Amino acid sequence: MTAGSIFVWETLGTALLILLGAGVVANVTLKDSLGKGGGWLLVNFGWGLAVFVGASVSAPSGAHLNPAVTLGLAAAGKTEWADVPVYFAGQMIGAMLGATLAWLAYKKQFDNHDDPAGTRGVFCTGPTVASAPWNVLTEVIGTFVLVIWILLSPGVELAADGTPNFGNSALGYAGVAFLVIGLGASLGGPTGYAINPARDLGPRIVYALLPIKGKGSAEWGYSWVPVVGPLIGGALAALLYLALPV
Amino acid sequence: MTAGSIFVWETLGTALLILLGAGVVANVTLKDSLGKGGGWLLVNFGWGLAVFVGASVSAPSGAHLNPAVTLGLAAAGKTEWADVPVYFAGQMIGAMLGATLAWLAYKKQFDNHDDPAGTRGVFCTGPTVASAPWNVLTEVIGTFVLVIWILLSPGVELAADGTPNFGNSALGYAGVAFLVIGLGASLGGPTGYAINPARDLGPRIVYALLPIKGKGSAEWGYSWVPVVGPLIGGALAALLYLALPV
Amino acid sequence: MTAGSIFVWETLGTALLILLGAGVVANVTLKDSLGKGGGWLLVNFGWGLAVFVGASVSAPSGAHLNPAVTLGLAAAGKTEWADVPVYFAGQMIGAMLGATLAWLAYKKQFDNHDDPAGTRGVFCTGPTVASAPWNVLTEVIGTFVLVIWILLSPGVELAADGTPNFGNSALGYAGVAFLVIGLGASLGGPTGYAINPARDLGPRIVYALLPIKGKGSAEWGYSWVPVVGPLIGGALAALLYLALPV
Amino acid sequence: MTAGSIFVWETLGTALLILLGAGVVANVTLKDSLGKGGGWLLVNFGWGLAVFVGASVSAPSGAHLNPAVTLGLAAAGKTEWADVPVYFAGQMIGAMLGATLAWLAYKKQFDNHDDPAGTRGVFCTGPTVASAPWNVLTEVIGTFVLVIWILLSPGVELAADGTPNFGNSALGYAGVAFLVIGLGASLGGPTGYAINPARDLGPRIVYALLPIKGKGSAEWGYSWVPVVGPLIGGALAALLYLALPV
Repeated sequence: MTAGSIFVWETLGTALLILLGAGVVANVTLKDSLGKGGGWLLVNFGWGLAVFVGASVSAPSGAHLNPAVTLGLAAAGKTEWADVPVYFAGQMIGAMLGATLAWLAYKKQFDNHDDPAGTRGVFCTGPTVASAPWNVLTEVIGTFVLVIWILLSPGVELAADGTPNFGNSALGYAGVAFLVIGLGASLGGPTGYAINPARDLGPRIVYALLPIKGKGSAEWGYSWVPVVGPLIGGALAALLYLALPV
Repeated sequence: MTAGSIFVWETLGTALLILLGAGVVANVTLKDSLGKGGGWLLVNFGWGLAVFVGASVSAPSGAHLNPAVTLGLAAAGKTEWADVPVYFAGQMIGAMLGATLAWLAYKKQFDNHDDPAGTRGVFCTGPTVASAPWNVLTEVIGTFVLVIWILLSPGVELAADGTPNFGNSALGYAGVAFLVIGLGASLGGPTGYAINPARDLGPRIVYALLPIKGKGSAEWGYSWVPVVGPLIGGALAALLYLALPV
Repeated sequence: MTAGSIFVWETLGTALLILLGAGVVANVTLKDSLGKGGGWLLVNFGWGLAVFVGASVSAPSGAHLNPAVTLGLAAAGKTEWADVPVYFAGQMIGAMLGATLAWLAYKKQFDNHDDPAGTRGVFCTGPTVASAPWNVLTEVIGTFVLVIWILLSPGVELAADGTPNFGNSALGYAGVAFLVIGLGASLGGPTGYAINPARDLGPRIVYALLPIKGKGSAEWGYSWVPVVGPLIGGALAALLYLALPV
Repeated sequence: MTAGSIFVWETLGTALLILLGAGVVANVTLKDSLGKGGGWLLVNFGWGLAVFVGASVSAPSGAHLNPAVTLGLAAAGKTEWADVPVYFAGQMIGAMLGATLAWLAYKKQFDNHDDPAGTRGVFCTGPTVASAPWNVLTEVIGTFVLVIWILLSPGVELAADGTPNFGNSALGYAGVAFLVIGLGASLGGPTGYAINPARDLGPRIVYALLPIKGKGSAEWGYSWVPVVGPLIGGALAALLYLALPV
């Protein structure tokens, strides 16, 4: 696949992922929204099905949608290192585009909501108990589970170019959705399960740039945690994969 | 497929969609109902599985069930323009039939519920913050995601006559159900995710006609928004589809 | 398939269905249970997955588990009329067995729960607003949707002997589970969605017989509604099926 | 498959199962967690999808992850008795590893949570009403349903070496996940559905060993119940399986 095609599909898929993912947080957070106070399971379903939608649509590029997945697949020898920067670029641009669309979809709700921590939470994650090493560890563990599942799960056949391939089935990506619903339910408690550098950094940049009413700090001091933790987790999953008797 | 068959299957499928979709809103809204206060995720599952049931049953006509889907498929060159009016007719008649059945299933609960806004909400959508342009935009974005997924998702093989075809599997339509659960969770907050002109206009007409106790205004001033927004969203998805390197 | 085998598989499948179905109601109702107050969506998932489990296991007999399904399939010419009484017998015996097992699993919780209406609700359904004709209608509509989906959904291939057959897949019966989750979410509000004569009558008999602490009336006056309504609904679905251009 | 491979895959799969399973309980229990108070359905989804993730990854060894499943398969003649101790060892080591990882992922939340019963509940189960015989019976019934489904469900084809095999599909293990979500919803109320000796005993040992802040008793007096009950349930399912006209 050409670099241009990888970029297009990853941008489109990640934009849909973040549009729906930021959307569900907006829905449960913003006071004039019908899903206000909808609970953690609603958030988990929103993000899990956001992955389902984004991944189904970006099947041609392997539906990475996540730099930690791309790094893990490259480290496991499944994706060309030369393609990695193109994946990263599409994922970051897509994430910024998706976050902007989510803001537009909920524009009037943002205008009526005057709570800086709440509006920031629609865009990027933060810890309930701040502690860089433990927050990193939580993100490492969550992303490790994500990537080891992608590498080992039966049915995630790798295409000739090394990218995951769930075959010609609209339901193939339901497996990843179930995984992500489960990750949020089980490991999202301490840090909000970024488990994806683009998912957190892209929307955080957008939050800093957009003219959101009553906007607060983008909390740049925390921003490296959901980047570094997931990348470590993805790399560790690749190392385990290479060590296993597969 | 003959126009008569298209009409029959779209009518049946859309009737089931709206029976179950209006049904879940009745269940969480009406005071003498067992699901009263059941929350947004329950509403999302109700509508998503309503699509599952309606779409499975109307597989022979491609299970459009939605004028915005029909328009998007026609604009993408997948459905004959000549068939479009037949699809629209079946969808509108089916939506009106389904809304009537939902009212009958909950007849005693409607009789005991004296809250015009609540009973109208069982039939048609409304915005939490009224603003025609932003409400339209929210519906455009939601429907765009719906139709681009249908056009691009692997496994949604198009039949010889250009309509979607999930194959001979009772589970094929689970993909669309997951998509619609996700759309409600993520993008339903501002306007109640009509994302389907027939879903909103058909039941609104029925609401205006039925002798519902303590009935209020059908809010005709808003009724064009969930018609125009979804049609624009479906058309935009078709345009993007034609531009992509598929 | 011999009458004996039909009886064994229908008994086993219906026992599992009712064990898990009555179980989830016990879980959300009884005061010393961990799922106490868990909400309507939890009840819907419990019953839907109860169908998944019971139907998967009773695949050899076609997994009817419901006299209204058996009647609908016979009326549609898919099941031999001669086998109908055997199906009915297995379903009733299985339902009584399952309800007894659910009572045993929650024995200490029943012993600590002194609320006749609550304990009866674990076993059998009742209307929120008593009105025989409207309650019957609600059950007719719900069961009609159940049976028309079974008759029309793609993938529900009928085996040589006319019983439904979801093929050699552990997931085949997930479609019926999704349908039943949706039926509960959307149409369960007025009468508790019996949509199955054996599901209601079998456990009601068991409730009348078991030495449940603080037990109240079995409400025999209502007991015919969840028998007659579902049978009418199943028959109507068969009539529509025969009239459609399938 | 060599004993070493069985051990590796069962350890990895059970570690993921318990990491995500203990994780969801931590998420709904610990006061500084985003999922605090998320409800029983969230717990059910967390455990069910924990099975999905762990089972998908450990497909090569048949994804038992549970001594009661291994015992049931051996008693039914599907697993070599000689391999049983290796399965048990991997399951116990994996469960202890997973519980430790869950503690690390929620380390700061545990540090801030001073409620012995709550923290113990993250690791192991306990009854709402203490009564050894009835608690055992509840665990017997739940595990019986688990194992009879595995033995009888279509699509759970047994591999040449007798272990379950859901084929080359990322979705194959969704069936077991649905089953476990349903078991928790329906039969988890009285004892917290251990239905797996390793799931309960492994984390209980870890709870006794780890330096958890404000830790209480590991309740060793109850610890035999979630070991003996599930083993009896698995064996009974095997006996029924052998008696059925399969």
